[in-house]
Amino acid sequence: MESITYTNIIGTFEFKDRKLVKEKLFSDKELEGALSKTGEAKTELPPDWVLEHLNKPKYLVRLREAALLLTKQKIKASLRPEHLIIQAVNNTEEIDRAANGLAKRAREWYELYNPEFSRSIESHEKFVELIQQKTKKQLLSEAGVAEGESMGADIGKKDLAPLMALAKEIESMYALREAQKEYIETAMKEHLPNVTAVSGSMIGAKLLAVAGSLEKMAMLPASTIQLLGAEKALFRHLTTGAKPPKFGVIINHPLVTSAKQKEKGRAARMLADKISIAAKIDFFKGEFRGDALRKELEKRLGR
Amino acid sequence: MESITYTNIIGTFEFKDRKLVKEKLFSDKELEGALSKTGEAKTELPPDWVLEHLNKPKYLVRLREAALLLTKQKIKASLRPEHLIIQAVNNTEEIDRAANGLAKRAREWYELYNPEFSRSIESHEKFVELIQQKTKKQLLSEAGVAEGESMGADIGKKDLAPLMALAKEIESMYALREAQKEYIETAMKEHLPNVTAVSGSMIGAKLLAVAGSLEKMAMLPASTIQLLGAEKALFRHLTTGAKPPKFGVIINHPLVTSAKQKEKGRAARMLADKISIAAKIDFFKGEFRGDALRKELEKRLGR
Repeated sequence: MESITYTNIIGTFEFKDRKLVKEKLFSDKELEGALSKTGEAKTELPPDWVLEHLNKPKYLVRLREAALLLTKQKIKASLRPEHLIIQAVNNTEEIDRAANGLAKRAREWYELYNPEFSRSIESHEKFVELIQQKTKKQLLSEAGVAEGESMGADIGKKDLAPLMALAKEIESMYALREAQKEYIETAMKEHLPNVTAVSGSMIGAKLLAVAGSLEKMAMLPASTIQLLGAEKALFRHLTTGAKPPKFGVIINHPLVTSAKQKEKGRAARMLADKISIAAKIDFFKGEFRGDALRKELEKRLGR
Repeated sequence: MESITYTNIIGTFEFKDRKLVKEKLFSDKELEGALSKTGEAKTELPPDWVLEHLNKPKYLVRLREAALLLTKQKIKASLRPEHLIIQAVNNTEEIDRAANGLAKRAREWYELYNPEFSRSIESHEKFVELIQQKTKKQLLSEAGVAEGESMGADIGKKDLAPLMALAKEIESMYALREAQKEYIETAMKEHLPNVTAVSGSMIGAKLLAVAGSLEKMAMLPASTIQLLGAEKALFRHLTTGAKPPKFGVIINHPLVTSAKQKEKGRAARMLADKISIAAKIDFFKGEFRGDALRKELEKRLGR
């Protein structure tokens, strides 16, 4: 008389008088849909004898398959927009490192040809741009050197070609870095509007990357946010007793850079406070208060 | 009655009865041309009283200018074609490093989207090429995975765009590296034909880069050429008594890679011998014997 219907992730089973009277296994297609339903089912375990019935190779194999599929789907569903932002932050840093490394190489080569100009210009970006656009003579005169006085050798077009190709590549890497920054800005405004309003998109994104996720960032105390990105200096302080760092990533925030030397620590602390609040609002999807937070901050710092 | 004409790098001076009767300083333009002439003049010093005559500020200032100009011109003239080859070798290595670093970043990002395909393909080059050409579905099926089973999240076009831009950049960096290699090959054939015939252009160019110049390379004994590029292992051997290295850069030469394990050392030694001879021929501009050297080598190694 005991009748029971049991559903798990591989199918539905009907028992009557402790005997299996009907079973319906999910097809591969159904499996995918079924997962979401069984996920919400009551977690109450069926009686032991039901489980014993299912303890057969054909069910176990199927169970393993279904469990794998379920895990994969959960992994798949675990991606959050902030993960893409973090990837983009890491990318801009790697692109920057790669482009600067190549720019140094390009300069070493170029200095055989026109050392005076290379020494006269500090920015790698300007350098790779200008050497493509202008002649040696023009560049020398920009550096204030007469053509006859240059220590650079005469190098023919054929031998300059690989250098120019390298310069072009570096230029396009810098452009790519800017495109990644634009992506970060758009995504930050969409997914972390409050943090973005307070810290700016790049600083907010870097904090997010160091924290690892928006959830972790929202849980951090303001004092930790203040030092995110200054881990090396912090551990140096803890181990050798050197001065503690006053700021990490936020050191480049305009409210900190423009503060007087003595005020920088205070500005960083107050900025970190507001970023911490903003991160909590963004994580819990609260109402937008970013602009108000920023204004408050500026007022208290006397801007 | 004593009459003397003295020319140095700043001009010509005529003396009569120990008095300066005529002087002609070179103009800036003439200076450049004059340098080459005085360079060949006899090095015999004039009498002391002549030098005393010239020991006046106006001559000294001019002398300093001229000496600077002369030095600059010598630096300018010191560039040899092999310097450009060395630059290109260093470039290919830096481009390779940069592209691989970015490819690892691109994979980390891409694996949020399609981890199965990324894991199924080892070559970074193929990877960045394919992810631009094919859809996720196509790539999954190449990796032998059904679309529903992928652990990769669904990512929209907008969020994939920065990743695809990165992949495109990496692809173009690999293309640039190949172009640099072509340049090296052409230049090696032109300037180090004998070395190129024996060792191949890339290995020859790398040896040249480690040696520092063709002159230095030509002066090296074969045993050093054999180990060029294995400095770390050599010093480890000298300091810790570890096994000495058998080969450096030439480890990748087909005659070494294709030799049996026990024969590799012998092949490397014989190859280094021939490269050493070839470098001497190239440096002293002897007749082309590269092909003969290579054939001799192949015959002795039984190919």
